[in-house]
Amino acid sequence: MHELDLLFNPGSVAVIGASSDRNKLSGRTIHFLKTFGFKGKIFPVNPSAPEIQGLQAYPSVSAIPDAVDQAVIIVPAPRVEEAVRDCAKKGVKILLVLSSGFGEIGPEGRIAQDRLVTIARDAGMRMIGPNSLGALSPSNGVFCTFSSSFARGAAPAAGQVAFVTQSGAFGSCAYVMADLRGIGMSRTLATGNEADVDVALCIDYLAQDPSTKVICASLESCKNGDRLRQAIRNASKAGKAVVIMKVGASEVGSVAAATHTGSLAGDDRVYDTIFRETGAWRARSIEEMIDVSYLIVTSRVTVNDRVSLVTVSGGIGVLMADDAARYGLALMPFAQPLLTELAEILPYGTGRNPYDTTAQVATNPAATVQVGDCILRHTSGDALLLYLANNALAPEVFKNTQAALIDLKAKHPERMIMVIMPSESGVRKALEQAGIPVFEDPTRAIAALGAMRELGRRAESLRPQLPLLPVKKLSVSVASEAQAKSFLQQHGVSITREEVCGSVDQAIAAAASIGYPVVAKIASPDIAHKTEIGGVILNIQSEVALREAFALLLQRAQAANPQARVDGVLVATMLTQGVETLIGVNRDPVFGPMVMFGMGGVMVELYKDVAMASAPLDRASAAELVASVKGSVLFNGFRGGARYDREALIDTLCRVSELAAQYPEITSMDVNPVLVMETGAVALDAVIQTSKT
Amino acid sequence: MHELDLLFNPGSVAVIGASSDRNKLSGRTIHFLKTFGFKGKIFPVNPSAPEIQGLQAYPSVSAIPDAVDQAVIIVPAPRVEEAVRDCAKKGVKILLVLSSGFGEIGPEGRIAQDRLVTIARDAGMRMIGPNSLGALSPSNGVFCTFSSSFARGAAPAAGQVAFVTQSGAFGSCAYVMADLRGIGMSRTLATGNEADVDVALCIDYLAQDPSTKVICASLESCKNGDRLRQAIRNASKAGKAVVIMKVGASEVGSVAAATHTGSLAGDDRVYDTIFRETGAWRARSIEEMIDVSYLIVTSRVTVNDRVSLVTVSGGIGVLMADDAARYGLALMPFAQPLLTELAEILPYGTGRNPYDTTAQVATNPAATVQVGDCILRHTSGDALLLYLANNALAPEVFKNTQAALIDLKAKHPERMIMVIMPSESGVRKALEQAGIPVFEDPTRAIAALGAMRELGRRAESLRPQLPLLPVKKLSVSVASEAQAKSFLQQHGVSITREEVCGSVDQAIAAAASIGYPVVAKIASPDIAHKTEIGGVILNIQSEVALREAFALLLQRAQAANPQARVDGVLVATMLTQGVETLIGVNRDPVFGPMVMFGMGGVMVELYKDVAMASAPLDRASAAELVASVKGSVLFNGFRGGARYDREALIDTLCRVSELAAQYPEITSMDVNPVLVMETGAVALDAVIQTSKT
Repeated sequence: MHELDLLFNPGSVAVIGASSDRNKLSGRTIHFLKTFGFKGKIFPVNPSAPEIQGLQAYPSVSAIPDAVDQAVIIVPAPRVEEAVRDCAKKGVKILLVLSSGFGEIGPEGRIAQDRLVTIARDAGMRMIGPNSLGALSPSNGVFCTFSSSFARGAAPAAGQVAFVTQSGAFGSCAYVMADLRGIGMSRTLATGNEADVDVALCIDYLAQDPSTKVICASLESCKNGDRLRQAIRNASKAGKAVVIMKVGASEVGSVAAATHTGSLAGDDRVYDTIFRETGAWRARSIEEMIDVSYLIVTSRVTVNDRVSLVTVSGGIGVLMADDAARYGLALMPFAQPLLTELAEILPYGTGRNPYDTTAQVATNPAATVQVGDCILRHTSGDALLLYLANNALAPEVFKNTQAALIDLKAKHPERMIMVIMPSESGVRKALEQAGIPVFEDPTRAIAALGAMRELGRRAESLRPQLPLLPVKKLSVSVASEAQAKSFLQQHGVSITREEVCGSVDQAIAAAASIGYPVVAKIASPDIAHKTEIGGVILNIQSEVALREAFALLLQRAQAANPQARVDGVLVATMLTQGVETLIGVNRDPVFGPMVMFGMGGVMVELYKDVAMASAPLDRASAAELVASVKGSVLFNGFRGGARYDREALIDTLCRVSELAAQYPEITSMDVNPVLVMETGAVALDAVIQTSKT
Repeated sequence: MHELDLLFNPGSVAVIGASSDRNKLSGRTIHFLKTFGFKGKIFPVNPSAPEIQGLQAYPSVSAIPDAVDQAVIIVPAPRVEEAVRDCAKKGVKILLVLSSGFGEIGPEGRIAQDRLVTIARDAGMRMIGPNSLGALSPSNGVFCTFSSSFARGAAPAAGQVAFVTQSGAFGSCAYVMADLRGIGMSRTLATGNEADVDVALCIDYLAQDPSTKVICASLESCKNGDRLRQAIRNASKAGKAVVIMKVGASEVGSVAAATHTGSLAGDDRVYDTIFRETGAWRARSIEEMIDVSYLIVTSRVTVNDRVSLVTVSGGIGVLMADDAARYGLALMPFAQPLLTELAEILPYGTGRNPYDTTAQVATNPAATVQVGDCILRHTSGDALLLYLANNALAPEVFKNTQAALIDLKAKHPERMIMVIMPSESGVRKALEQAGIPVFEDPTRAIAALGAMRELGRRAESLRPQLPLLPVKKLSVSVASEAQAKSFLQQHGVSITREEVCGSVDQAIAAAASIGYPVVAKIASPDIAHKTEIGGVILNIQSEVALREAFALLLQRAQAANPQARVDGVLVATMLTQGVETLIGVNRDPVFGPMVMFGMGGVMVELYKDVAMASAPLDRASAAELVASVKGSVLFNGFRGGARYDREALIDTLCRVSELAAQYPEITSMDVNPVLVMETGAVALDAVIQTSKT
């Protein structure tokens, strides 16, 4: 049994702070539980009323004679701790703290909140909240919430879509929109301050919850990255679609999120990366989240990336063909045998996909079915999308077409058949019940299908679990460039031939051994940004030039930072024939080390041509990372140029990412540039930063 | 009076091919005109019926005793020409040809269609169609269409939004969606094959139509670019918002569009450019088109780029703050005096914008008004967006808040006040009537506001009318690189010092005069892509090297194309210190010469860092074009680098664009690279292509 099972399936619920007035926040939970069909026991707890809304009330939880699975706490903040202690004594399993006035109001509230966690943990209770809007499970009447969304008296329908959100209002906005769209809900939880239970734990629960098919989640922040990764992975592997929103991406949004939840948003690209790697789809609007969920639960099928498009009008076909290209779906031209068969059904039909039936089909629903059936038989797994204009607003006019569509779906239950048209709600419901999703806007239909396809693709090609590498402690200093590169070299990364030279004579001897031209750089642990002080001199062709360079570098170092410890001058091979790239690592406080790969120079600065992945990388993930950067076409003999050693780059990425994963002391690495040559890839410079341990 | 006035305001309409059966396509127009309140005269024309749907019918148009303003033609294709001739004889002013079977079916239909145009032109008639779905004007009952969208019997409401589309089905999809959204329609036209009247002429009409506030247009192709430019400009200047869709952007979409309308889609970026320059907003979905229209006609205000956001929940505030950043809107943090005043109203409110009232406001609508009023008074022109959760689904619960909102708008009629929430339709209508737009999805609300703002900004900063430059004929050949550059130089473009040398000795003399290093290039009118055959040798440092280069170039030219006429070798100054850019010109068959500017090398190849504008450019437009390219930051001393001569580049762009506009023979120019130096900008190479005249 999952730890959160009694949250959604309690045999008994105590409501601490229950009120007799069902219109008050504190009166709503009892009212909802009674009205919406909860079959377990309900225990109102209120020291000043012997009876609440017709139920026997108790002065405290410990006074309840029966066992209590779940306690919903609605008392004001100062009285919550006492209630939690009482629950601990009673042996309650799940605490659902709706009361606010804790972590979200500042440090004082945070301390009080931490005390609740300690009491709960010691007693083996899991706690949701504080500041949660509650938990719902319509199929068994669990409405442990005081949300005003249900104050109208109607319970949302039970179904297969779960909502788990930090913000209660975000959740209620989403599930009300879902309800208006006719989507049934399996479980809903607002995690609030997440003092104990977070969105990740709830996703983990939903991953194994048979009633849930789609998990809609929303986050403003995350405290435990690995748990979130694991939970989404579990859900993806269990065949659940995870459609997730992470808000707070913009500067203002991030400040607003910090105000709202008291935690910082972090680098938004990290979330993009995590969601992609674990198989989730990141939605950019609540409506998009609902659209994708609707399509999945209504259609009950899986899809590939191919679409067969039939319209009663060319104009809409052109629009949808554009949309398909935008959302990563392919319209394959129909083959001749299919076209021949279609011409027999509709002599005036035109187009090879999109296929335009022209208006003649409007009055001949049998032809729509024949066309659809023909396409489904001749194509392999293509989704069939039908744009049917406006007849479905008049159910009488549409009646025959509707019946024909339902027959078509019955004949091809495993295929996606979608209809795009405005429709009267009865028509829409009948088609939905038959497994045919209906969209009004053509572009939204295609966007949702693109997202559904991508969810499927990600679930099929989940990144393998990150290997657990043995954790090591640094035994050498990596403070200077030479040390950092030497460390990289010891771990399998190629670096330039080079030597730190304390004197001009040593430098000249080193250059003679390395071979001209060389590069000379100031070697100092106190000067990280060498280029900016003129601390790098390239393309030194001779002993004379090297002598000059040596003096100049020492002089510039002195001028820039008189206190800098100077080890001397680093003399290295001058390499130029290759493509400059960069490899970076940042240890995200929540998600751990993240690897960035990008093209060097202005390509990263101006065009942000970088991509990110979780460390460590296996070869396949590293190859994917490289391929996802636009500039990587330069490796393939771009415009008749040379071919560069992509495999050596992939090796380097793997080695750097493993170091990042193995050495927790390393907070960041900037291996930049990494020169990818016709043979080999070489780190030309490196800065490694460590935590002060 | 505008030429299309009698299309939407006819005093009398003849329907040629009218049928007695109102359910048949040919029976609908008469039925609609009778049912939906047309006050003019209706003349059914049908040689075999003395009476049609209760009206006296005539065997031909010429048999009608009264004057006929407009004739709607519904007869089969083979009988259309006869009908048109009859209309010409009668002195009809407007022909609306709904019959299909012309240009859209192939060359034969095209010939028949051209004959119709000739007859109409000769008789001074304007013709819409053939293959048009018709014209509507709900305010005066004009429903000259056989669209099945109205077969249900309900006429769409009259209002301020016009729809003009090539595809009839596209139009009916859009206006049915608008109607379902509660947006009233002013005029609607489907232009069909556009043998005579096109979308541009209709936009031109709508620009001066007092009943129209927003023009929704959709195009698959365009035949006369200047007319479209002028029409949209006229509309923008007249304060109408033009929201336009151009479909056929993708490869498959473009093929589908060609199938559908028989004309090619062209370079999609040209449309982006034209729409931006003339003040239109390009919508990417029909829903977006409707959203923007709805916002403009409902709010009756203008907006700037600032938003004040009030929510009853932090979570939705964070989402909307992200959306605002995405759609170009700014959330300015509230100043202290405003915050102080807000704190007096709502002690628990948090945030500086978005401002979170917290749920306390839900039961206190007066506070919402106070908060809104306070923000509107303290800010200057900010749009006020209120996210109000789910109460508006229960009209009784929401009653007081609704009244309070209406009061607030009455107090600030010139300000944008938008509400985001799901709502019962009565609530929504009441707010809309008061001038308060209501959106359900937060993201769509922000997207529509961003588009509305951008429409306003574009209308304020319309590009000046393109100046009409005197048209000239080329008097010199521009076939070779040297000729092309010389031509550019004569027109004010700086080029390198250079000389075409027929012999090695001449080359050596030229290099001595120019000064080493030099670049040597094969000079041949038959070899356009010199680099690809090794026909450019850079950085020649000495006489010896030049001698070698000369021989090598001749040899390579011979190898690549033994038939090539070779003028010799071009010896030019070797310039390297600067930023490589490119200037291109393409004469679009529809829109004329379009200038492209981009960063050189991989930046244009990989990152498509190019921008486009109509030629000729004035300095302001050229400056804007440069600034719109990401790489232009390189001119400003990027990362401590040099500053480059942006003004010289702008000069060069103006000169090249003027040439393109003045010489119609020039079909394309590729001035690439243009080296922008610390002082000056120089064309290093140029290829000019001309039409064979």
